[in-house]
Amino acid sequence: MPLKKPHNGLQNGDGSHEKDSRHFGNGSQQQNMDLNDHEGEQNLPSVLEVGNDSPVVNGIGSSLANGSLNLHSTVKRKIDGEKDYVFDKRLRYSVRQNESNCRFRDIVVRKEDGFTHILLSSQTSDNNALTPEIMKEVRRALCNASADDSKLLLLSAVGSVFCSGLDYSYLIGRLSNDRRKESTRIAEAIRDFVKAFIQFKKPIVVAINGPALGLGASILPLCDIVWASEKAWFQTPYATIRLTPAGCSSYTFPQILGVALANEMLFCGRKLTAQEACSRGLVSQVFWPTTFSQEVMLRVKEMASCSAVVLEESKCLMRSFLKSGLEDVNEKECQMLKQLWSSSKGLDSLFSYLQDKIYEV
Amino acid sequence: MPLKKPHNGLQNGDGSHEKDSRHFGNGSQQQNMDLNDHEGEQNLPSVLEVGNDSPVVNGIGSSLANGSLNLHSTVKRKIDGEKDYVFDKRLRYSVRQNESNCRFRDIVVRKEDGFTHILLSSQTSDNNALTPEIMKEVRRALCNASADDSKLLLLSAVGSVFCSGLDYSYLIGRLSNDRRKESTRIAEAIRDFVKAFIQFKKPIVVAINGPALGLGASILPLCDIVWASEKAWFQTPYATIRLTPAGCSSYTFPQILGVALANEMLFCGRKLTAQEACSRGLVSQVFWPTTFSQEVMLRVKEMASCSAVVLEESKCLMRSFLKSGLEDVNEKECQMLKQLWSSSKGLDSLFSYLQDKIYEV
Amino acid sequence: MPLKKPHNGLQNGDGSHEKDSRHFGNGSQQQNMDLNDHEGEQNLPSVLEVGNDSPVVNGIGSSLANGSLNLHSTVKRKIDGEKDYVFDKRLRYSVRQNESNCRFRDIVVRKEDGFTHILLSSQTSDNNALTPEIMKEVRRALCNASADDSKLLLLSAVGSVFCSGLDYSYLIGRLSNDRRKESTRIAEAIRDFVKAFIQFKKPIVVAINGPALGLGASILPLCDIVWASEKAWFQTPYATIRLTPAGCSSYTFPQILGVALANEMLFCGRKLTAQEACSRGLVSQVFWPTTFSQEVMLRVKEMASCSAVVLEESKCLMRSFLKSGLEDVNEKECQMLKQLWSSSKGLDSLFSYLQDKIYEV
Repeated sequence: MPLKKPHNGLQNGDGSHEKDSRHFGNGSQQQNMDLNDHEGEQNLPSVLEVGNDSPVVNGIGSSLANGSLNLHSTVKRKIDGEKDYVFDKRLRYSVRQNESNCRFRDIVVRKEDGFTHILLSSQTSDNNALTPEIMKEVRRALCNASADDSKLLLLSAVGSVFCSGLDYSYLIGRLSNDRRKESTRIAEAIRDFVKAFIQFKKPIVVAINGPALGLGASILPLCDIVWASEKAWFQTPYATIRLTPAGCSSYTFPQILGVALANEMLFCGRKLTAQEACSRGLVSQVFWPTTFSQEVMLRVKEMASCSAVVLEESKCLMRSFLKSGLEDVNEKECQMLKQLWSSSKGLDSLFSYLQDKIYEV
Repeated sequence: MPLKKPHNGLQNGDGSHEKDSRHFGNGSQQQNMDLNDHEGEQNLPSVLEVGNDSPVVNGIGSSLANGSLNLHSTVKRKIDGEKDYVFDKRLRYSVRQNESNCRFRDIVVRKEDGFTHILLSSQTSDNNALTPEIMKEVRRALCNASADDSKLLLLSAVGSVFCSGLDYSYLIGRLSNDRRKESTRIAEAIRDFVKAFIQFKKPIVVAINGPALGLGASILPLCDIVWASEKAWFQTPYATIRLTPAGCSSYTFPQILGVALANEMLFCGRKLTAQEACSRGLVSQVFWPTTFSQEVMLRVKEMASCSAVVLEESKCLMRSFLKSGLEDVNEKECQMLKQLWSSSKGLDSLFSYLQDKIYEV
Repeated sequence: MPLKKPHNGLQNGDGSHEKDSRHFGNGSQQQNMDLNDHEGEQNLPSVLEVGNDSPVVNGIGSSLANGSLNLHSTVKRKIDGEKDYVFDKRLRYSVRQNESNCRFRDIVVRKEDGFTHILLSSQTSDNNALTPEIMKEVRRALCNASADDSKLLLLSAVGSVFCSGLDYSYLIGRLSNDRRKESTRIAEAIRDFVKAFIQFKKPIVVAINGPALGLGASILPLCDIVWASEKAWFQTPYATIRLTPAGCSSYTFPQILGVALANEMLFCGRKLTAQEACSRGLVSQVFWPTTFSQEVMLRVKEMASCSAVVLEESKCLMRSFLKSGLEDVNEKECQMLKQLWSSSKGLDSLFSYLQDKIYEV
């Protein structure tokens, strides 16, 4: 379920020409509080498209209001847009120069004081959609974080979308080429990606800045604390796009949301707002978009001041009795996806659905 | 817990004399949307008793606004009421003539495009209360639906009550006659009825038009999607009527509602409104009574357009790890009921409670 | 996490000098409904400190409005306050004289008609904090109640706080003396206390009059029905105070609240209001403080009119499949606490945290 309009972190600069300044009243304050610029990098551009459902570029790791973003005139904003683009290039550059970050292409990894911060920031897919390559990068980052001296992991995204799930254009492309080989390869990539979350021993905090779709929503119950911006929403329309559930959602969603709502999400593609997801237990707290990144950072830093042993042992107590069950579910789910993708019938059904969607656009 | 005032589908025609037209503004539109009259049958009568707690005959399978129901004058409505009664007789007649439907007395089964629709419409009990015979009919219909080419099952009810649970007048009558034999027979009927839901492999959607009591509420978590009309409510006062839980509610209710609310329902007979049931996870969505049947049909038809394999395999993934546990719980619950009914003490307690209720009326 | 300001039942008389009469309009009615004075004892004093967050002495077992509490003038109230103090002394005295109650120091146990009422009323700790000795008294009372003819157990508290969890000043004192011996002793006391709740066969109703912290909140899911006053709140900041979860909360909290909120409570010390706890399933219903004790008593008496066999067998059905799992979790949690307390690192971390708190005050 990739969104139609691409909102890729690096291409977002243009968006800032749109006329809006609603959320920028306390710009200077926010600059002081923004916790991502301590490495001396310039911030990511912050683009705010306002409307009822329009996405807001408000990821953790992006500043909502760096000094240059005083968007009260269209002219000024245009310039800012150009500046942002430059800043963005610089960020990318500086990240690549940084020893601990330079090994990743589609994610950004930051070693902070007491915790590791992974940001989805896909260069090779739209809307932070997941490909086997991107999933492998996340796994690698999780593996590093499990071994270093960080006490917990913060997962968030650059751009206006948290994660749009599996990259279906990638999926179609590969499965069209070699159904048998690719169905196995992609299903195994999903399995290993999900397994990395199940097995991660330190607490994982997720900060959901925008839409979380498919696998991007399914993995949330495998994380420990889920904070969402008011702009976030959640959807797992597996059956609608002719797929079976993944990310252990066939087990975790009924546990958390109740059987009825879980099925409505998985079978009918029911969309949950941030507030609904919070009142039903998928999310633990919802924050106002403009202060989301500060609220999250504040809490994560406080958590990171706890004893590492206590954090890890507490998670161990909470997860140990679930772990083997989740691993079984993950295996079964990926086995099922592989079967669907390697059968001509399952593939036809998927293709014809996605084809229809393309024609609709 | 049968309600005192009978609201049997066939006897409801009289109710339409009552003065109200509130919900009928968009009658003609609704006629076009009503999805139950495509088999050329006449619709069931639609009787609206309006008041704070008055039941509304708004079952799926009943038209809220067939052409004759323009209830803007009392006179017209009286005539309509009579007409409805005739329509209703015709429906019953036409259903009996229909090959696939003629084998049932207390339920109506409709083969729709892509799904099977079972409607509780009891002729031998009040308020869709369940007797071993009616439960056997439902089991038989589930068995048929599992074997045919339908992709999912829709369960709803004719009349203003979804299901009032076990028929207690039947229960008392039988247990008074032959405690030992009947306690076994009835407990086994419940066990097999519940087991049929546990084992049904296609998704089950339930549309709750009105009160769902006792076993009629307990089985909901064994279904997959539960939609409710604003007029629905839920109650399982097992301990109050001197019974132990049934329908796997001793397992599913704490899972879904939390231990505290589950126990309040099972021990204290706490009644949940549709909205409460939705916010606590028993129901996935609540709809306005006047458009309830259309909203449900729209969604069920969309679900029925999904791949049959995906629907069944998704349900299998979600239920497989629960199935054996639920079957155990079901066995234990029914074993316990049998013990209660076959002990003179348990029976006395039940009888004296129900006796009191009869005197109260 | 003991609260700073002591609100011990016996010292509360002074509070009644404060100016407020808001909740006492229906004083005389409440007197008739108050269900605690049938043993001929005088009631506990009822002190209402009104303000946004101020505690209200409104425990079950305290009369909100005995005749003397017509608080419409400050003068009258001052006198009442003095009277209350006397009443309170009398209560304590009469309880000690009573055969079934005289064996306890920090709890009050009342044999009521059909149920046993245990009230936390700690004389040796502040805010009903738990020490091994107090936990042993509760265990002994549970053991008695399991053997007598009562059908269920009501657990509540005297004073404005339900239970502030483990007594940390006690903990520090003992662990400083003999880390190895005391860590084992205290961890085992917690284990046995929690085990007594897991194994108790009759339904347990808990009435939460005020804050429930740490272990005082963790054990709630081991009880069957949880009713809370609007003034209650819930917090389990284990990680914050450098501890791992106890009371089976590492298992029950994710089950009931969802993984995300459970972790926010256990890792970040997120505080839940009574309403939040109710909407998320920890509490089954919230009542207005002034009528809380009557509402609870009304319901408990109705429950106690049910068949004893039905109540016990229903609980057995609901808990049997969980019991062994909970016992395992309890063992693991207490094992972990023992390890933390017996390691110098774990202890240092705990001490330095609690030291900081003391300096803060």
